[in-house]
Amino acid sequence: MIKENSSNALNKAFLLNSCRINGALDVISGRWKALILIHIFEGVNRFSLLKNVLPSISDQALGKQLKELETDKLLTKEIIAEVPVRVDYHLTEKGQALMPILTNLSEWYDL
Amino acid sequence: MIKENSSNALNKAFLLNSCRINGALDVISGRWKALILIHIFEGVNRFSLLKNVLPSISDQALGKQLKELETDKLLTKEIIAEVPVRVDYHLTEKGQALMPILTNLSEWYDL
Repeated sequence: MIKENSSNALNKAFLLNSCRINGALDVISGRWKALILIHIFEGVNRFSLLKNVLPSISDQALGKQLKELETDKLLTKEIIAEVPVRVDYHLTEKGQALMPILTNLSEWYDL
Repeated sequence: MIKENSSNALNKAFLLNSCRINGALDVISGRWKALILIHIFEGVNRFSLLKNVLPSISDQALGKQLKELETDKLLTKEIIAEVPVRVDYHLTEKGQALMPILTNLSEWYDL
């Protein structure tokens, strides 16, 4: 974003940090993503349960957000061999590590 | 988002938290907002200076983002009676309080 020979005082570490922040915001800013992660963290960890607590999200949208969160390694899918087959979602370590940051953000919003 | 008589275990405090997180993400997720705030925090606090470090943002987009950040009370504008008139931007307390959270987010992204 800044030319290599730029004369401004910003250093590469700072720029790298900036890119990380944008990356992080891209990952969690999807319309429902933070909420989905929090719900799964709280044990609302199946598609049908998530639909109950997020009634205005369409099946398609919920499926898409879950898929993206899995791709971004914030959650994993556990397929349980029941009849019918059950799918449980779990937060990865990275997903869990986001929880206190979301709490901080929520507290910050009220300042 | 959840019916008053919903039988799920989520309580109102939790829901309020969820709304706050979405609110917070709305405020900071604009294409350039986190970067603009960090730059101003680091002393890059005038329109022309910001243009130097964010060369790919248009004047119009930068003006819009600054205005929104001011509306959301994350920064204030100080008009300095020089010739020509100078405008400095400063983070509010709320804006400053966001900085450690952005640092946490940036560290989290690398996990």
